[in-house]
Amino acid sequence: MSLAIDAYVQSNEARFLEELKEFLRIPSISTLPEHNGDTRRAAEYAAEKLTAAGLENVEVIQTERHPLVYADWLHAPGMPTVLCYGHFDVQPPDPLELWISPPFEPTERDGNLYARGSADDKGQMYSHIKALEALRDVHGTLPLNIKVLLEGEEEVGGLSVAAYVEHNPEKLRADIALVSDTEMYEPGMPTLKVGLRGLLYMEIEAQGPSRDLHSGVYGGAAPNAVFGLIELLSKAKDADGHLQIPGIYETVDPPSAAEKTSWEQLPFDEAEYLASEVGSTSLTGEPGYSVFERTWARPTLEVHGIAGGFTGAGAKTVIPAKAVAKVSIRLVPRQDPAVVEAAVRQFVADNAPKGIRCEVRVLSSGPGLMVNTDHPAIRVAAKALSDVFGKPTVFTRSGGSIPIVGDFATHLGIPTILMGFGLPDDGLHSPNEKYNIRNYFDGIRTVAHFFEEYGKAS
Amino acid sequence: MSLAIDAYVQSNEARFLEELKEFLRIPSISTLPEHNGDTRRAAEYAAEKLTAAGLENVEVIQTERHPLVYADWLHAPGMPTVLCYGHFDVQPPDPLELWISPPFEPTERDGNLYARGSADDKGQMYSHIKALEALRDVHGTLPLNIKVLLEGEEEVGGLSVAAYVEHNPEKLRADIALVSDTEMYEPGMPTLKVGLRGLLYMEIEAQGPSRDLHSGVYGGAAPNAVFGLIELLSKAKDADGHLQIPGIYETVDPPSAAEKTSWEQLPFDEAEYLASEVGSTSLTGEPGYSVFERTWARPTLEVHGIAGGFTGAGAKTVIPAKAVAKVSIRLVPRQDPAVVEAAVRQFVADNAPKGIRCEVRVLSSGPGLMVNTDHPAIRVAAKALSDVFGKPTVFTRSGGSIPIVGDFATHLGIPTILMGFGLPDDGLHSPNEKYNIRNYFDGIRTVAHFFEEYGKAS
Repeated sequence: MSLAIDAYVQSNEARFLEELKEFLRIPSISTLPEHNGDTRRAAEYAAEKLTAAGLENVEVIQTERHPLVYADWLHAPGMPTVLCYGHFDVQPPDPLELWISPPFEPTERDGNLYARGSADDKGQMYSHIKALEALRDVHGTLPLNIKVLLEGEEEVGGLSVAAYVEHNPEKLRADIALVSDTEMYEPGMPTLKVGLRGLLYMEIEAQGPSRDLHSGVYGGAAPNAVFGLIELLSKAKDADGHLQIPGIYETVDPPSAAEKTSWEQLPFDEAEYLASEVGSTSLTGEPGYSVFERTWARPTLEVHGIAGGFTGAGAKTVIPAKAVAKVSIRLVPRQDPAVVEAAVRQFVADNAPKGIRCEVRVLSSGPGLMVNTDHPAIRVAAKALSDVFGKPTVFTRSGGSIPIVGDFATHLGIPTILMGFGLPDDGLHSPNEKYNIRNYFDGIRTVAHFFEEYGKAS
Repeated sequence: MSLAIDAYVQSNEARFLEELKEFLRIPSISTLPEHNGDTRRAAEYAAEKLTAAGLENVEVIQTERHPLVYADWLHAPGMPTVLCYGHFDVQPPDPLELWISPPFEPTERDGNLYARGSADDKGQMYSHIKALEALRDVHGTLPLNIKVLLEGEEEVGGLSVAAYVEHNPEKLRADIALVSDTEMYEPGMPTLKVGLRGLLYMEIEAQGPSRDLHSGVYGGAAPNAVFGLIELLSKAKDADGHLQIPGIYETVDPPSAAEKTSWEQLPFDEAEYLASEVGSTSLTGEPGYSVFERTWARPTLEVHGIAGGFTGAGAKTVIPAKAVAKVSIRLVPRQDPAVVEAAVRQFVADNAPKGIRCEVRVLSSGPGLMVNTDHPAIRVAAKALSDVFGKPTVFTRSGGSIPIVGDFATHLGIPTILMGFGLPDDGLHSPNEKYNIRNYFDGIRTVAHFFEEYGKAS
């Protein structure tokens, strides 16, 4: 572990923070077409900083939607090649009125940097770039070969990067991928995620009458699209969170005994989790399963949003003609997204209420994955984390989805190291998203140390 | 029946239509505060036309929300007094993109006048004013005493007019009220409505976590406000439209045998009703009840709109913190709105899903009513309708709600004649609302004849 790297990072903290703030001021909201120019600006910002860090062959690659960024440095023959991945697009910031400081004006409070994208994923992906800069400036060279692939569609399904990985396996050939887009189990506890849930994200639309009808005149005889959608969705899972879509649990494996044991040893206070993270009156989910099992190793269904009929101020007595919901199912390893999609379509066809026509549109789809924990890079990564944070690294899973990990496994045949520096209360996808500033700097150090040691280890 | 009135109306048709168009161009949408000025302009327009028709003591009365209009003509001692009621406010026009011609640019097509408010209720209420003008111009006087009370909050609960009626029984004292805000059973079939459903209109809000959460991280453990609201509402009625709120059917009377018989004789083609009016794949509602019973004589529950979570373009994987629905229950005579409200509150308290806090806010509330069919005014009204339209008048009920009829019964102790000239396909509260132009002129004639005959009959 190089003290020179630590010294370099420490003496450049102020600049590193300013550069990240500049990156975060770009509202690169990939789902909103009016921000397409901003998403492109974020790509160009990242490309510029990769060039400044000494990377070569820097490209901003046009796609059908948002650009990709590629760069490499391949002057360490005989050394392994690491493919660094990150995304520069962010979630929409709404509801805006709940932000304490504006989402695209990064603001320091209590040791954190508040901004949309600070943790997910600009802050984390930028730490890779700064680690490469540090290594180049301290050693005049890099300890291994580096390829960098950044995308601007992670929050909208990542179709362009998936296609790019599929069609460019030679260009992207590497020994491992490194992704920093996850969180540590708790502050100060270095964490590697070795399992991920997949995601099947859909829109389900219900059509009742051909036009909105007056509920006084037609109430009692005409189907109501909003109520029809409510009826349909209410049947998709029971009050305990158990999915009611036939066949959906057929390929759901329990976690291994070793995993269950390790999860039981993780510090976890359910009352504290309920009060400070969830903030509701009680937790939900399948009885007989721990919170870790429910959120990491069980499929779940959520309705992310619903809209239909009159929702303005006051009263309007319509029977709505149309309603639409955004619905997703989180998948565990071995659940095939195509099989689950077919099961959902069958469920909707079988349960469409009387007089209601339903349509299912898939917006994105990706499988769950387990990462091989026996790979030497995992051991080196665990040591780099332990060295910087001064504690043993724990192995957990994530209930979230990182489809690119599946693409790397399928098309490049490589495992992905999920080395995340976020914290559980970072508020990803929520108002007041933040990134711990100490973790930002320690993340840069950890990534640099990982590269140094992985070069030596191989 | 005075031929002079018919001749007067005929020779003034073009002017009557132009005046109505001018009235309809005022976008007096009472639920939208940005249209408050328009709602006031509509009041002033009506007041001006009442003055021009010879009415006296014309007032635009300030209220806490939208103005009322009052006028009278009380120079027929010994003759009965009719209180004419109507409303000059309209529903919002959205969804705007479905209108063939702009909602506030009245357009003639196929013998109809298309505009928001054309049938509900500007066109109908304006026929009262033109009938009074015709009587005054033809006879130089009116055949009975007239009071006119118009409001601008009918579409938002009518609180101001309700308070005004309650506090001014002496000023408003009359023998009967006349309301034209209903439809004829079918084109050319004169109709008096003798029963009305009431309405309890509520917002139900669900709160899950304290903020939107990432569904990957928390899915399986955190309550989802949208799904919680779906679960709750799905329990409020079954797939057959039978309400599941305990106690709600306790005071629901079946229609009388005579009513049931007369309804069975009304021309009705269920397949045609489904295809051309409802426009869905099948009708819904309680098995064993006819469409007339289901829409006129049974309580029903509708969700008018629902909103929560992310509903923009694309995908956002939140577990939403909040969701809200607009929900109403149509009430039949003898159902006490306060008792039903208490039953709903109890139902929500008993069925709030785990981790979900629910709040019920009542936006408006009014009972269902039966109108006394033995009153001489009903017989005179039926005759005036039959004379003008050349067919026997039928007696029906309405599934809709006219709370003012309850206020007139409670505070003035008078029955209301519901003499409507709308048609079933007028598209009230929907895009492309229209009013049949022939019915507009015939409505003016009918109201004038009714006044003439009711004066003589008493």
